Amino acid sequence: MIVLFTDFGLEGPYTGQMKAVLHREVPSVPIVDLFADAPVGNPKASAYLLAAYAVWFPATTIFLCVVDPGVGGRRPPITLAADDRWYIGPGNGLFELVQRRADKVRSWDIEWKSERLSASFHGRDLFAPGAAMLARGESPPGPLREDDEDRRPHWPDDLYEVVYLDHFGNAMTGVRATMMPSEAKLVAAGRFLECARTFSDLPVGTPFWYENSNGLVEIAVNQGRADHELGLAIGTPVELAA
Amino acid sequence: MIVLFTDFGLEGPYTGQMKAVLHREVPSVPIVDLFADAPVGNPKASAYLLAAYAVWFPATTIFLCVVDPGVGGRRPPITLAADDRWYIGPGNGLFELVQRRADKVRSWDIEWKSERLSASFHGRDLFAPGAAMLARGESPPGPLREDDEDRRPHWPDDLYEVVYLDHFGNAMTGVRATMMPSEAKLVAAGRFLECARTFSDLPVGTPFWYENSNGLVEIAVNQGRADHELGLAIGTPVELAA
Amino acid sequence: MIVLFTDFGLEGPYTGQMKAVLHREVPSVPIVDLFADAPVGNPKASAYLLAAYAVWFPATTIFLCVVDPGVGGRRPPITLAADDRWYIGPGNGLFELVQRRADKVRSWDIEWKSERLSASFHGRDLFAPGAAMLARGESPPGPLREDDEDRRPHWPDDLYEVVYLDHFGNAMTGVRATMMPSEAKLVAAGRFLECARTFSDLPVGTPFWYENSNGLVEIAVNQGRADHELGLAIGTPVELAA
Repeated sequence: MIVLFTDFGLEGPYTGQMKAVLHREVPSVPIVDLFADAPVGNPKASAYLLAAYAVWFPATTIFLCVVDPGVGGRRPPITLAADDRWYIGPGNGLFELVQRRADKVRSWDIEWKSERLSASFHGRDLFAPGAAMLARGESPPGPLREDDEDRRPHWPDDLYEVVYLDHFGNAMTGVRATMMPSEAKLVAAGRFLECARTFSDLPVGTPFWYENSNGLVEIAVNQGRADHELGLAIGTPVELAA
Repeated sequence: MIVLFTDFGLEGPYTGQMKAVLHREVPSVPIVDLFADAPVGNPKASAYLLAAYAVWFPATTIFLCVVDPGVGGRRPPITLAADDRWYIGPGNGLFELVQRRADKVRSWDIEWKSERLSASFHGRDLFAPGAAMLARGESPPGPLREDDEDRRPHWPDDLYEVVYLDHFGNAMTGVRATMMPSEAKLVAAGRFLECARTFSDLPVGTPFWYENSNGLVEIAVNQGRADHELGLAIGTPVELAA
Repeated sequence: MIVLFTDFGLEGPYTGQMKAVLHREVPSVPIVDLFADAPVGNPKASAYLLAAYAVWFPATTIFLCVVDPGVGGRRPPITLAADDRWYIGPGNGLFELVQRRADKVRSWDIEWKSERLSASFHGRDLFAPGAAMLARGESPPGPLREDDEDRRPHWPDDLYEVVYLDHFGNAMTGVRATMMPSEAKLVAAGRFLECARTFSDLPVGTPFWYENSNGLVEIAVNQGRADHELGLAIGTPVELAA
């Protein structure tokens, strides 16, 4: 299975052209759109989201990841193997948390060159063909690398910020719920947030936080939109209540 | 064929994770996104939409339906067979109109338990695995039920409200066009609306109603957006002109 | 491969119903969403976009194209063969630039009638079944036509207007970059725009134009949204700086 994680949107030409490459190269491999609305141009917020969601997928899954504001510039294109899953995309920090949380990590430079490599769409011209190679069982197309250059050691293990707003207006943070003290309260946008198990445990209109279905701390309002009602955006800080 | 009917959106992680389950469980079964933007958290409006669109699909189609504001709470998870099509999802009224309009209906509780059942994402952890079972030809995973508990006998046969705004700003109502008197006029948001056969029958800018391609009364403006120009939203009442 | 080019959006019922037809008729043929957000009701802007993107695809690709504000009216439904690719959709100018730029063009009327042809959804009832016929290797369902009636000889070879705003706020124009004088400057919305190779070549916040990955002149702001920052919309004129 090839899983797409991008900030491309689905409706325009970018996701479709990547899929056209994959259909041509590996027609029998299923393709799943995981996120097409990762935080735009924001590899840091995306890195926490990717790490939380990738572990849900089975071994051998290939993640084709493109959140790449520096496309055409000097960031390296890389392939990564982490705990039996594959990742391919820009070495701009996007894989930092996947790498940090994995028991076993190896990474490779991508040295294979496409016949036509556009300056602005490596997702189509470099990473999708690379993902197809991995799906065919070929070796990563480039030499093993010391995986230090593209690492971000100064990023925290959990990011106390909003990293994603979903279709319902719920706000995911970069914090794993398992790292939270039991029954802890949070503060976001000046509001105290109690912990709940799920939406239906609280009165309509109450803001709260809960462990979402992939283990992240998520801020929600029962039958409301947390983004609008609390004024949350990507990057809004979240903290433990004193 | 498995058809998805949800309020999840396509770009975030929910639809993708459900599809990942289906690809793993029943890789050869095609999956179609029918609605990913059903009225958010609104099983009632969704019920009229689902009933109108489901009958277009062939026998044996499996509808995986999630509009589920009470996820994690007490509404029952159910499987439904109605006129040779299958439905799986929350028993919160979402299937009321499908049941009411079908000649032959049976329903089952879902008693199968997933290895990991999250509190907030039964679409992925319960309903998608259940849809896969049906697609493999297995029996519904639970006992036959008296289908009275989750029924909504007080809901009308046709809902004189806007139930959906499409990509063009057209407003679908919960009213079947066959239930309308011939050449009837409607009133919505204080405007009289004549009946027309299709867009190109009217001057540019004229609001009107017509029978849409799935039999619902739909309000549109030729080459305009009915939602903005008339001020329509989900729930806006529609009535027959006196 | 069947490629969808529409203004339908992906989340509502239109794209899904077309795909349901294709899955039923030609289950083994991959379907790719190229554009589901072509300029709404605007076959002219769409025509320049389609012509630029179609040539990226391999021979034998079938483009199922619906940007069709006149559906149900008098515009002819047509099939087109242009340089070994197939196109099916409304004869309303949508294929004008594909035809004009191809070396070898033939077109056919569609005379096949669906069992149930709705007045407003020819994408599902006429064009999708037609695309399936082509995918099965059948002949176009209708007589060869003189392809003059639906032509738009007065449309320019390149359209100096914004024809598409992407997910990032970048503005594609209807101008092929190869038609631009080398290092030319553009003016759009009162701003001078230098040429750059790609995003990362310029300071953050600078607006510029560049040749996009499918050869169109595109206006962008490094790590910003050109649409908001410059006030660009579909139809905004673009001109060469004096």
